[in-house]
Amino acid sequence: MRMAELSAETGVPVATIKYYLREGLLPSGRRIGPNQAHYSREHLKRLRLVRALREIGGLSLAQVADVLAVLDGGRTAPVVLGAAQDGRVSSRPVAQAAWEWALGRVGELLGEPVDADDPAVSNLVTVLATCHALDHGAVAGRLVEYAALARAVAAVDAALITDVGPAARPGEAALVTALLGERLFEGLRHLALVETMNAVPAEA
Amino acid sequence: MRMAELSAETGVPVATIKYYLREGLLPSGRRIGPNQAHYSREHLKRLRLVRALREIGGLSLAQVADVLAVLDGGRTAPVVLGAAQDGRVSSRPVAQAAWEWALGRVGELLGEPVDADDPAVSNLVTVLATCHALDHGAVAGRLVEYAALARAVAAVDAALITDVGPAARPGEAALVTALLGERLFEGLRHLALVETMNAVPAEA
Repeated sequence: MRMAELSAETGVPVATIKYYLREGLLPSGRRIGPNQAHYSREHLKRLRLVRALREIGGLSLAQVADVLAVLDGGRTAPVVLGAAQDGRVSSRPVAQAAWEWALGRVGELLGEPVDADDPAVSNLVTVLATCHALDHGAVAGRLVEYAALARAVAAVDAALITDVGPAARPGEAALVTALLGERLFEGLRHLALVETMNAVPAEA
Repeated sequence: MRMAELSAETGVPVATIKYYLREGLLPSGRRIGPNQAHYSREHLKRLRLVRALREIGGLSLAQVADVLAVLDGGRTAPVVLGAAQDGRVSSRPVAQAAWEWALGRVGELLGEPVDADDPAVSNLVTVLATCHALDHGAVAGRLVEYAALARAVAAVDAALITDVGPAARPGEAALVTALLGERLFEGLRHLALVETMNAVPAEA
């Protein structure tokens, strides 16, 4: 298909597609004339993936580029997942005391010694320390319950990723399952929480 | 405390604090001189909340303002949760066929008729339709499992929210539990998924 069709099919403006081509997020089309190129179904799929990672996964374009480079390197699903997580590390400043308190709670959960240089661990500590600073440190008392449920969710994720079949790339399946799956689960959790709270007598 | 102390305590630049005051995100301090004001512990707490909703909750400043207005109106926890969700509605374009397919799957899950005007439902349909467009529609076959786990997570959330005690505001507890809790759960899920996938023989 031509670029105009690629744009019409995905709703992505031609100028944006050209930008993605320049930035290497989308591979070049097959040249069929001095100012024309042909784009395949693979281009369409890649363009959809870029947009989904941006708009639903919440990654910046630079993060999308990093993750796609890892994906295109044919790396395993855990490596692709790690790359997607790296881009989302929170660098928000947290008071030292709150950070150390949170590191202790995460250590109790995961077992010492905790590798605070692991972006996934550091993210967890940052969020927990922020809860503490907001007088909601009680959430730490529920970490074991949340972690058990997170393992159950991850087991469903893993089944989806490994079930994709030999033709599909497990790295891409892992990426979509993890990033879009988070939004899906958040939506389900929100609906369930509102339903639960509506069943509780109003207090405010 | 003075504004400089408020800034030192939170790491938020004075210029940003002044901007929040102008925008009404932070109430004015008690004036103690022509160019000086005194800020209380309540200001400190509010400033921390604004930053956490921005940096970890991922809300825009306009969304933070909307949610705080609902919170300050003394509304119930479900109303505050709804306001926080409204700001996160995805307006990403989805092909009609994918949308209708996803609406059908959500209808099977939640029971017909589905209220597609409910932002929470519309978000769910958008994410599912995007999965479908990316050839990962298989996730729909796991919706019932995910929804059951989401209900279990929401039950823990609800216990945390209702346990805050009479002094705290349940709306604020709901907000922090929902928005920061999402990031916490995502972190736990990521760690569990990487662990699970590392235990599976590499395929890529």
